Amino acid sequence: MKAIIFAADGFEDLELFYPQHRLKEEGIDVKIASMQKNRITGKHGYTSHVDLRFDEIDPKLFDILVISGGKGPEKMRLDMSALDIIKHFFDEQKVVAAICHGPQMLISARVIKDRKATSYIGIKDDIIAAGAEYLDQEVVVDNNLITSRHPADLYAFGRELVKLIRKPGIM
Amino acid sequence: MKAIIFAADGFEDLELFYPQHRLKEEGIDVKIASMQKNRITGKHGYTSHVDLRFDEIDPKLFDILVISGGKGPEKMRLDMSALDIIKHFFDEQKVVAAICHGPQMLISARVIKDRKATSYIGIKDDIIAAGAEYLDQEVVVDNNLITSRHPADLYAFGRELVKLIRKPGIM
Amino acid sequence: MKAIIFAADGFEDLELFYPQHRLKEEGIDVKIASMQKNRITGKHGYTSHVDLRFDEIDPKLFDILVISGGKGPEKMRLDMSALDIIKHFFDEQKVVAAICHGPQMLISARVIKDRKATSYIGIKDDIIAAGAEYLDQEVVVDNNLITSRHPADLYAFGRELVKLIRKPGIM
Amino acid sequence: MKAIIFAADGFEDLELFYPQHRLKEEGIDVKIASMQKNRITGKHGYTSHVDLRFDEIDPKLFDILVISGGKGPEKMRLDMSALDIIKHFFDEQKVVAAICHGPQMLISARVIKDRKATSYIGIKDDIIAAGAEYLDQEVVVDNNLITSRHPADLYAFGRELVKLIRKPGIM
Amino acid sequence: MKAIIFAADGFEDLELFYPQHRLKEEGIDVKIASMQKNRITGKHGYTSHVDLRFDEIDPKLFDILVISGGKGPEKMRLDMSALDIIKHFFDEQKVVAAICHGPQMLISARVIKDRKATSYIGIKDDIIAAGAEYLDQEVVVDNNLITSRHPADLYAFGRELVKLIRKPGIM
Amino acid sequence: MKAIIFAADGFEDLELFYPQHRLKEEGIDVKIASMQKNRITGKHGYTSHVDLRFDEIDPKLFDILVISGGKGPEKMRLDMSALDIIKHFFDEQKVVAAICHGPQMLISARVIKDRKATSYIGIKDDIIAAGAEYLDQEVVVDNNLITSRHPADLYAFGRELVKLIRKPGIM
Repeated sequence: MKAIIFAADGFEDLELFYPQHRLKEEGIDVKIASMQKNRITGKHGYTSHVDLRFDEIDPKLFDILVISGGKGPEKMRLDMSALDIIKHFFDEQKVVAAICHGPQMLISARVIKDRKATSYIGIKDDIIAAGAEYLDQEVVVDNNLITSRHPADLYAFGRELVKLIRKPGIM
Repeated sequence: MKAIIFAADGFEDLELFYPQHRLKEEGIDVKIASMQKNRITGKHGYTSHVDLRFDEIDPKLFDILVISGGKGPEKMRLDMSALDIIKHFFDEQKVVAAICHGPQMLISARVIKDRKATSYIGIKDDIIAAGAEYLDQEVVVDNNLITSRHPADLYAFGRELVKLIRKPGIM
Repeated sequence: MKAIIFAADGFEDLELFYPQHRLKEEGIDVKIASMQKNRITGKHGYTSHVDLRFDEIDPKLFDILVISGGKGPEKMRLDMSALDIIKHFFDEQKVVAAICHGPQMLISARVIKDRKATSYIGIKDDIIAAGAEYLDQEVVVDNNLITSRHPADLYAFGRELVKLIRKPGIM
Repeated sequence: MKAIIFAADGFEDLELFYPQHRLKEEGIDVKIASMQKNRITGKHGYTSHVDLRFDEIDPKLFDILVISGGKGPEKMRLDMSALDIIKHFFDEQKVVAAICHGPQMLISARVIKDRKATSYIGIKDDIIAAGAEYLDQEVVVDNNLITSRHPADLYAFGRELVKLIRKPGIM
Repeated sequence: MKAIIFAADGFEDLELFYPQHRLKEEGIDVKIASMQKNRITGKHGYTSHVDLRFDEIDPKLFDILVISGGKGPEKMRLDMSALDIIKHFFDEQKVVAAICHGPQMLISARVIKDRKATSYIGIKDDIIAAGAEYLDQEVVVDNNLITSRHPADLYAFGRELVKLIRKPGIM
Repeated sequence: MKAIIFAADGFEDLELFYPQHRLKEEGIDVKIASMQKNRITGKHGYTSHVDLRFDEIDPKLFDILVISGGKGPEKMRLDMSALDIIKHFFDEQKVVAAICHGPQMLISARVIKDRKATSYIGIKDDIIAAGAEYLDQEVVVDNNLITSRHPADLYAFGRELVKLIRKPGIM
């Protein structure tokens, strides 16, 4: 199984590294994707290599998409290739997990309408304006879509993510 | 004439201080408002006193509202008193100027629908999802509403703001 | 099952939060312990509450001990109560996981002699001087003792930790 | 009309950007000048491009000179071309506005003697030692010379600057 | 023998600690003096206790005065008690050593006129405007007055300081 | 007489600069050595040039070795050339002065066994595990070896260092 994590400069550090290590623990091959291949730096100063540019990704080769939060989503949502990858994941009903500001990309990809979701509280009204049902819970699972609010929810986010990818017939 | 500037911790420093000094230059009495009265600190480390808490403001006493950007709006949009002040300004067609992330508050106050506006490019899709017409210009003036994109637009933001408050009959 | 994580100011942020969330994912009750109950701040600026002071812990009530790295161990190893807790875990052959600079505490508690272990490469010679066999591997499991080198090893550290606590008869 | 703003690394951020935007509001063409053409970084981390090196400026082409404060003046006052530009402005009685540590350059250019001026309070005694009359006011206008003390005076500094450049016969 | 070192927030760290330790090496009792007794923080983040407020010092009890540089002198020169102490040292021809921005205090105390001195290059013109002869040397010794330019000169500053205090008849 | 100071990125700033200037005061030629020739940056942000790489040093040409502390020793102790230089100094009974974390290198070079020494308190147990007698004193002189605990001990460290190099017959 293969996963991509979306991240860009200003990413919320734990929201990149927790899912990355958690998925690696399960033996999943995890790639980091961004607009460019330069190393990216998180809000707290951790850095990460980037494996793939959005415009060189073939989404058919991946089973899981994780969208990290922080300041990255406001930049990544301007990248059309990134939005196309998200649409592919929703069209194919593959697992998508977004945390914190990550759901901003779901608004831009126009895939959040009529879905149940959560996010960082500061963008709650944007989620609602985009037509989603906002739930103030540590994790919301709506079919293939998993969303959480902030780093303190990571244990629940990880738990539901792993539960979903182990489910027979999902992938 | 009296103005209020909305700002909170993480405010974009120039987007608070430029309008503050510019309006003071015109002899306008300018108050800084936030959730609490503690000093607030900008993204670049400047600090500002706070004159008024949102919940102690009588919006009838003010003629001009400026919403600064940065990280403040994601916090201030959760304050119901702040949103009520914005609604009052729109109901009364008083001057409202919002820059950068400032328009996030207009989404939360549900006053942006069917208006022409601009904002920081990273929240463009939220502005559109909320029903506004987004224009990528240094300043957009739609009746009483002035919006700009980022600190580099401040000269145009200030110019249109001063032009509007000098207009006979506006106030 | 109950776990304690040892941490102090200057802790390596991921080395505290990854095990904390990973263990919570397993439904384990996790407490953070330090010299004092004030919030502690990591090398990268994340902060954590502290649940317990070392001198108020009854180690019999806990099944798992995790020692995070960074600059914390050089402070925590001076606390006799902390060292006594470590000795208790070794005497009772309960699970102990230490990462990065965490094994400095094992030297001070005099429990590392004749054990296989790894650590941050910069303290390798101290581990050897204290009589352990140093292995340059992402994770070393020697009976109840799990050690890793740095944050990039967290996925393996977490994997072996969870494997060990699920083992029948260990606890 | 054309203006030059003098600035160098460590400039007081607001003291560069406020006059720059304020003059642009008036439709004035504003250039930033320094010792070198690399981007410069302010005390608070804002950066600015540099349009011109001091040694490539023809001062006859400019009508207004603004000297920003912070740590820049202690570096710029060592540049002979910069001092020559200042002397030209005084010889021709063109508008010169200096704020905070900016007046340090006026000492080096030997143009402050017998003038009324203000500055950052910390260099008051240097202004006096150089033969000027120091006034502790938000803005001091002595013919073509405008001086202020610190960022909190910017509204008055801007007001007097704009008043002076609109005056018929000044330029 | 007893020495006082003048320092305030923003002090150049090495310029406080080098003379402090160097004089202690000689068995001299060294006190740190400032405007207030709170700990002070240097430009590079080192902190120091403060032994004495300027207004509680009896200068007759001290033999040596060291004025550290950095951002401290622009604050300390506003303190009349500090300037009176300097005047006492000059009147009594006791040893005074000032480095970097330290000589700003000599301008304010009006003791630099007709003396040979050096300083941080950025305030050279202020030293000259105040009537001193500026020499661009690592250390300048003019009777009881020792001055240096910046931290890289500390070895020469320390050497001449110790040489002077060992001189018979000086104290 | 010639001295080498060992330092690497993250060096404790005062522990490099104090001995450097102190030895220069004595007229001693002082070189800074590290793994590479790029400038190095201390914990507090001071930078230093590097004169020599460890692998290009001929230790026979030097009389004094100073090992600065901070985060440098955990990196430098991995360099075999650096450890060989230390061994040479001990074999030849030349002066070696190590402060703070500096003694970590003495553990790696296996020269600390059966010696009296001190160090930063956080590595006390490593010093003991390596077979030395740990003394909690501002400075410990054991024949050619001088050790201190932290920057506050620099005056004593410098005093004993200078005393030792002036001793007839030592060099």
